[in-house]
Amino acid sequence: MKNILTTLALALALTFSLQAQELTNFAFWGNQKPIVSPEIVGDSVTFRLKADYATIVKLSGSWMPNPWTGTIDMTRGENNVWEVKIPLPDPELYTYNFVVDGVSVNDPQNVLVQRDGTRYLPMLIVPGQRTENYVEATQHGTVSHPWYHSDLLGMDRRLTVYTPYGYEKNTKKKYPVLYLLHGAGGDEEAWISMGRTAQILDNLIEKGLAEPMIVVMPNGNANQAAARTLNIPEKPMANRWDREAFEKMSEAERDLIMNGYVRSLCTEIVPFIEKNFRAIAKPSARAIAGLSMGGGHTISASILYPELFDYICPLSAAGSATPEQIAALKKAGVKLYFLACGNTDFLFKGAEEMHAKLLEQGLDHEYFVSDGGHVWANWRLYLNTFAPKLFK
Amino acid sequence: MKNILTTLALALALTFSLQAQELTNFAFWGNQKPIVSPEIVGDSVTFRLKADYATIVKLSGSWMPNPWTGTIDMTRGENNVWEVKIPLPDPELYTYNFVVDGVSVNDPQNVLVQRDGTRYLPMLIVPGQRTENYVEATQHGTVSHPWYHSDLLGMDRRLTVYTPYGYEKNTKKKYPVLYLLHGAGGDEEAWISMGRTAQILDNLIEKGLAEPMIVVMPNGNANQAAARTLNIPEKPMANRWDREAFEKMSEAERDLIMNGYVRSLCTEIVPFIEKNFRAIAKPSARAIAGLSMGGGHTISASILYPELFDYICPLSAAGSATPEQIAALKKAGVKLYFLACGNTDFLFKGAEEMHAKLLEQGLDHEYFVSDGGHVWANWRLYLNTFAPKLFK
Repeated sequence: MKNILTTLALALALTFSLQAQELTNFAFWGNQKPIVSPEIVGDSVTFRLKADYATIVKLSGSWMPNPWTGTIDMTRGENNVWEVKIPLPDPELYTYNFVVDGVSVNDPQNVLVQRDGTRYLPMLIVPGQRTENYVEATQHGTVSHPWYHSDLLGMDRRLTVYTPYGYEKNTKKKYPVLYLLHGAGGDEEAWISMGRTAQILDNLIEKGLAEPMIVVMPNGNANQAAARTLNIPEKPMANRWDREAFEKMSEAERDLIMNGYVRSLCTEIVPFIEKNFRAIAKPSARAIAGLSMGGGHTISASILYPELFDYICPLSAAGSATPEQIAALKKAGVKLYFLACGNTDFLFKGAEEMHAKLLEQGLDHEYFVSDGGHVWANWRLYLNTFAPKLFK
Repeated sequence: MKNILTTLALALALTFSLQAQELTNFAFWGNQKPIVSPEIVGDSVTFRLKADYATIVKLSGSWMPNPWTGTIDMTRGENNVWEVKIPLPDPELYTYNFVVDGVSVNDPQNVLVQRDGTRYLPMLIVPGQRTENYVEATQHGTVSHPWYHSDLLGMDRRLTVYTPYGYEKNTKKKYPVLYLLHGAGGDEEAWISMGRTAQILDNLIEKGLAEPMIVVMPNGNANQAAARTLNIPEKPMANRWDREAFEKMSEAERDLIMNGYVRSLCTEIVPFIEKNFRAIAKPSARAIAGLSMGGGHTISASILYPELFDYICPLSAAGSATPEQIAALKKAGVKLYFLACGNTDFLFKGAEEMHAKLLEQGLDHEYFVSDGGHVWANWRLYLNTFAPKLFK
């Protein structure tokens, strides 16, 4: 028994001494009571940062009217813990950071972090109806990162794939697939990290609100094999922005520049998924949705391959279609056309025009206008709104 | 053609305007030439950080003799870009951070980041023979995060699983499996993030040095469903450290506290993997390795289930075995026993003792002593060293 207890004591000691195995800077840690940040109490939230030698500490948050420049001053308190207490913003998932003497600093107390490009940002999730599907459900799907080979783009490329809870157990069941596309500046992890796709789908499926489905999130940057965080050199896109060179190209070369990624998605990724996952391989079990640049990709895919997807959801889309293209799509058949945009989005005019064109051509669609602009708060809301309408 | 070029121009504009879709603080960005950091030129490396209003900026790095307290002063240069140039440390993967007026700050220019607990740290990879397998290979395996159900621990628990390049294509092929365990303070992503497991295996397999294998990295904290970054409440471990309560428990209750995770690994995770992946289900195709606390788990597994694994690799292990237990293991048969430790590790004495006991009992083994202590630099080296010896 003594040996066992010695082992227990050793394990306990190790747990604390090795909590962080290669931490390189404990300078700002003290022996005081643990710092809690952010701390939501009632209808306010308090942020705290220990900063012994700072002159000015500020808080910047995505709920602020102008988060790019707006900040709130924090006050130095006991033990040089800087603090600010603010009224709780409306329920939503926000990001924030501290600004210490002009330099952006993350919150070392906050375990919830998202990645935007190559930047990691702490999250504040204000509880409420709006965010109830953004936190972990009880039952979890599997997130994986397979690589597919693209002959068109000349490289192996990384995907993010979500398979729903039960996929491993129900070995005979086949699932419908949502292809979910990110915007400019994003990559194959954008929808998982900023979009909370796994949490939203887990919750919707667990509540019986959405069909169990596979979600495929490719990398939409045709010159990238994977997210920049993997540090794989990008492929040079010869003459991509050189007008004179572009004019001299063959139609095939131009098409590769304009549509290479969308063609890879529709002729390489879709077959890869339908071969390697238990996916139902027919249009009524395929949906495509995308935000901003990915909304443009969504529209392009529906134009280039009108038979492929029965569910089409352009979100805050950078792209449009001609009346003829919409007519062709209507003829091919669409079960759901979900067009969404924020009413202060800089692309809102394009959404209004697209809505009008769809009306003109008599293509049944749902036009979903939300408050706000070109932000993830809207894209999470859209996913949470259209996912329950798919494959039913 | 004009429409196409307008679209191109719009796409280009979007690419830049949306590079970061929800950045909340551009205060420290300017219009000057891009800042490069870290920049390796010849045998030196330069770190740079723009910090307009800072008083003191320092650099802390894991190559320093005492990285927990040691730092190097940086110098303010043109446009408030602080800079320091140092001799290039020996080839290795290091982490570092800036200290701005006493507060730890990451390098916004560096895309390479690892996670240690809930802390994200920039990496510096100094090229050389030691690190050639720590960077991306050409052919990539798939990393996934399935959840297995543990009846023993009473929850669904998240795994990290690496399947080698070609796994998707070679649908008839079955693979051997390495179970790779983290230390205290770690979680199911520690070996992938700090350990560079995917990169090391990709490189070894691509070079023909290691057999294509599946690698399973569970969460070794019996009270956790997943890494703390998922923010799932931990299970209270009743009376775990209460000696009096422990003495009053039944043997079964004590065993669950002492061995719950190892039993879940051997009787729940191994069957889950062998059911859901194309794994070869026999001892000669199973290896177990673990660092520190995970080295203890490795030894425990070899004691409790001596028939299960033919390859056993305790690394800087917090644990040991009795002569009788070693004799039982010898009788069960071991193809490789790889015992490794750093010669300045605080657990080195335990490794020496274990080595002596293995010699005494005549259990053939490899004793691998490296320079250095209880650090990831050693654990990456060990993985890179023993993986080529498995399943041959």
